[in-house]
Amino acid sequence: MSRNNFPTAIIRIHCPDQRGIVARVTDFIDRNQGNVVALDQHTDKEDNRFFMRVEWELEGFGLTREQIEPAFQHAIAAPCNMAWSLNFSDQIPRMAIFVSKMSHCLYDLMARYQSNELNVQIPVIISNHKSLEDVARQFGIDFVHIPITAETKKDQEKRQLDVLKEYRIDFVVLARYMQVLSAEFVAGYPEKIINIHHSFLPAFAGAKPYHAAHARGVKIIGATSHYVTSDLDAGPIIDQDIARISHHDSIPMLIQKGKDIEKIVLSRAVKAHIDRKTLVYHNRTIIFD
Amino acid sequence: MSRNNFPTAIIRIHCPDQRGIVARVTDFIDRNQGNVVALDQHTDKEDNRFFMRVEWELEGFGLTREQIEPAFQHAIAAPCNMAWSLNFSDQIPRMAIFVSKMSHCLYDLMARYQSNELNVQIPVIISNHKSLEDVARQFGIDFVHIPITAETKKDQEKRQLDVLKEYRIDFVVLARYMQVLSAEFVAGYPEKIINIHHSFLPAFAGAKPYHAAHARGVKIIGATSHYVTSDLDAGPIIDQDIARISHHDSIPMLIQKGKDIEKIVLSRAVKAHIDRKTLVYHNRTIIFD
Amino acid sequence: MSRNNFPTAIIRIHCPDQRGIVARVTDFIDRNQGNVVALDQHTDKEDNRFFMRVEWELEGFGLTREQIEPAFQHAIAAPCNMAWSLNFSDQIPRMAIFVSKMSHCLYDLMARYQSNELNVQIPVIISNHKSLEDVARQFGIDFVHIPITAETKKDQEKRQLDVLKEYRIDFVVLARYMQVLSAEFVAGYPEKIINIHHSFLPAFAGAKPYHAAHARGVKIIGATSHYVTSDLDAGPIIDQDIARISHHDSIPMLIQKGKDIEKIVLSRAVKAHIDRKTLVYHNRTIIFD
Amino acid sequence: MSRNNFPTAIIRIHCPDQRGIVARVTDFIDRNQGNVVALDQHTDKEDNRFFMRVEWELEGFGLTREQIEPAFQHAIAAPCNMAWSLNFSDQIPRMAIFVSKMSHCLYDLMARYQSNELNVQIPVIISNHKSLEDVARQFGIDFVHIPITAETKKDQEKRQLDVLKEYRIDFVVLARYMQVLSAEFVAGYPEKIINIHHSFLPAFAGAKPYHAAHARGVKIIGATSHYVTSDLDAGPIIDQDIARISHHDSIPMLIQKGKDIEKIVLSRAVKAHIDRKTLVYHNRTIIFD
Repeated sequence: MSRNNFPTAIIRIHCPDQRGIVARVTDFIDRNQGNVVALDQHTDKEDNRFFMRVEWELEGFGLTREQIEPAFQHAIAAPCNMAWSLNFSDQIPRMAIFVSKMSHCLYDLMARYQSNELNVQIPVIISNHKSLEDVARQFGIDFVHIPITAETKKDQEKRQLDVLKEYRIDFVVLARYMQVLSAEFVAGYPEKIINIHHSFLPAFAGAKPYHAAHARGVKIIGATSHYVTSDLDAGPIIDQDIARISHHDSIPMLIQKGKDIEKIVLSRAVKAHIDRKTLVYHNRTIIFD
Repeated sequence: MSRNNFPTAIIRIHCPDQRGIVARVTDFIDRNQGNVVALDQHTDKEDNRFFMRVEWELEGFGLTREQIEPAFQHAIAAPCNMAWSLNFSDQIPRMAIFVSKMSHCLYDLMARYQSNELNVQIPVIISNHKSLEDVARQFGIDFVHIPITAETKKDQEKRQLDVLKEYRIDFVVLARYMQVLSAEFVAGYPEKIINIHHSFLPAFAGAKPYHAAHARGVKIIGATSHYVTSDLDAGPIIDQDIARISHHDSIPMLIQKGKDIEKIVLSRAVKAHIDRKTLVYHNRTIIFD
Repeated sequence: MSRNNFPTAIIRIHCPDQRGIVARVTDFIDRNQGNVVALDQHTDKEDNRFFMRVEWELEGFGLTREQIEPAFQHAIAAPCNMAWSLNFSDQIPRMAIFVSKMSHCLYDLMARYQSNELNVQIPVIISNHKSLEDVARQFGIDFVHIPITAETKKDQEKRQLDVLKEYRIDFVVLARYMQVLSAEFVAGYPEKIINIHHSFLPAFAGAKPYHAAHARGVKIIGATSHYVTSDLDAGPIIDQDIARISHHDSIPMLIQKGKDIEKIVLSRAVKAHIDRKTLVYHNRTIIFD
Repeated sequence: MSRNNFPTAIIRIHCPDQRGIVARVTDFIDRNQGNVVALDQHTDKEDNRFFMRVEWELEGFGLTREQIEPAFQHAIAAPCNMAWSLNFSDQIPRMAIFVSKMSHCLYDLMARYQSNELNVQIPVIISNHKSLEDVARQFGIDFVHIPITAETKKDQEKRQLDVLKEYRIDFVVLARYMQVLSAEFVAGYPEKIINIHHSFLPAFAGAKPYHAAHARGVKIIGATSHYVTSDLDAGPIIDQDIARISHHDSIPMLIQKGKDIEKIVLSRAVKAHIDRKTLVYHNRTIIFD
């Protein structure tokens, strides 16, 4: 959003690094009387790759929304061999939350949602347990219980996908959802499923990371939010944070301290995604300012 | 420096916010075949002010170093009402260090200097005590002893200024220098004197901040690097950092723990200044990426 | 609580430093077959003052709950000139929350309460506005609306006190309550009112600290939880934390980023208080492990 | 050291958890007129193991230094089945530093040593390269050059051991020493070799951790100090710390940012070891206050 809360257009770009890209992109906006409200760029010198996010006010812009895509593709993106996307700030994405039994991340997201911290719609919560149905009801969100066993997993994922379609979901947040999604499920939502893993990845991937951290005797624990790929806990990292611990911290205390990091890190990742500030390239993220 | 270690030109700008500035500036560079290696911009919506730093390779650039200033002034800066500066990355600034008796910041700067972390020349260390003369000698830097008393201060500051001129000093770092510089001295080096204050400013300005922090019972201590102005400890902040403490920490322990923060925060500020990444506006800093 | 969830006794002590205190206290427990589950001590060498917290299992202890106080007072506390308190871990304290319009701290406390992170009873929320009545209802907590104006303040504080009595409240948490309590009110709850202030105290005490932080151009913001005294924002600090910011952060962004620190810092202080891990001496806190 | 800088005795203990240990130990000191200046204890409930460090002034103590060990062993340690050690604060340990080519950790240790931050003697620096000979000379420390190749390693380790014996070295600090010590070498100095590893262990053990961190796209880097065991980078962790990074940070920038964490983390570990505040049990450390 711009300072006047006028809707904005957001373009995210990556392309081979080359002379003059910023000039071309900003000139395109300027020629059409667009007022840039945010611009961030990055050059990866090892990959020789250029990345950019630019956001400008639609108010007074010389092209209609429909004209922007073909005009930019023709004038800038095609000649520069860009991969790019266009969004508008008043397109509010629709998000589903998957949970199991732990409530802390769900409560955190709900509280932010209800107080309008997140520019998103959350029509549905899906869970393999009934434990958090009451929380969903508290906040007036639909709750769909889809239990999962090894035998039923394939069929139940189909039910999950049906729910996502029914609610026209754009992206999914796994808020301590304790099931591994199948590769097929993940393939349908590339860079659209955000997980919170309760360790400082790549340390302690997989199950029971706090137990593993305790056994190793680390002095700092962490949490990692990442886009889900078919490789477990190996997708592109969006954000991480840590907490200092000591020998006094038993496993239950690690779990407790970890909750506060998990919910902060997950919410930051969700916010960056909603605000179209993330870009994935070669399994790493660019997080624009 | 660019990826190839070719010299670069660096322009820092601020001006009234207006449409198309990034396009104009980048177009100016692009038209002259310049390759941008870094670009960072910021709009302060409250002040309606635009800030930008752009760095491009001089190799292959269509203007000579001498031509850049008048060309940019005429084509861009004057029409946009810009305050701006131009530097070249191979202009190595000359830095003087002022110290008193504490060695930790001096050692830290010396170690970075000797291992080429800092793109700077340090020809001289000035002190009101002889305590650190040996450190200067260890690192082969000239040491000038200028003792100061209330009576001699005015004259001795004149001697200090003579030394700065003699060594052609561009900027001064106060590495726990325990004398207050006069307003006249400071006026001669605007945004060119960097101090480290051993508290989390604006808390505990003035003398003995660790004693004050202990008395107040804070749970976190800090350090602040800032440009020196005629207002004591009130100049524009460049960087800050903190350390967690507890009731176990006596004043000597605070002093000890604080040293590690002080030296890190001071060195980060010095590096940002050397790399022309700082910009001061209305007693606040923009620190470019 | 002990490892077996047997109830424990907790003694907090301060007294003039002297030889043999730990031996005396632990011998008292040992002679009565008590099993120590936690012990933390601190000597303030400047004040020549000794502080200690010890917790032991009541199961199998040779004295009844009623006998502990007189026995310890006679054998240990009186001869050593101790100020001390005795609590039992199964005495669940009763806490009231005061709020105004901002919901983030309230939601955070509610979520922790509902998921049993806090060993406390929260029977009532008091507010000078109706904004958060729905949140109270969501979590099934009584909500009492007591509007306050300059004229009505004295009377309304009396109503607040009546509510505290009616609900048998042991301590009060000000979760971004935007009214200043009178000295009389505070005097009735010494070291029993916990506030969260949205700055890194003592910097930016008083109103609008994020505005002040922005004006000063700090690079780090903070939050401070403290016991309320009659001096505004000057009571003993329980916990603090910080977040790094940059020139990009406008005042609304500081307010937003600050919320996450505020709720974490407040909840840590509340938990320390509930677990009887705090001790106040000379306007500073000892926070036991 | 005590408040009066009188020498102190330090006992570190671990034993099966049992009722009354603190009482016994403190009573032993008290009966002999000892004044406790620090006491820290920990119970590991999972391992049912008790840990304790206690420090008391020797001035006025009823036993001579020589009498303490047999008296404590007989009265306390044997009946409680303790593993324990006794040290005196005026026994200054002798430390050797191993380096290769990078100077930052060496400079940091030297600066702390020269300014008396560390209660230690450093008579010798050993290196497989000559690069840092000048730094040793700057600080007046003996420098022994022992080059190492795959073929000569066995013999050269023998030379290293000879140097350690000649200089009567108590413990060794690997300050970015880029050779792996043999299991035989390590076996001779159990819990007496401290390494700094330039990652957040257990992530990125082994060679080139910053390259690995960059490839994985982490948002935080770290450093880990640990006691060296025969398992590479798997010894008990003494301390860790981290720094936040972004997509802007190339590998050289990670290396640069990492240096500041490495030197802080290494120096904290060295200080804890010198002050006899570490205790290793089952490949994890207790770090006493």
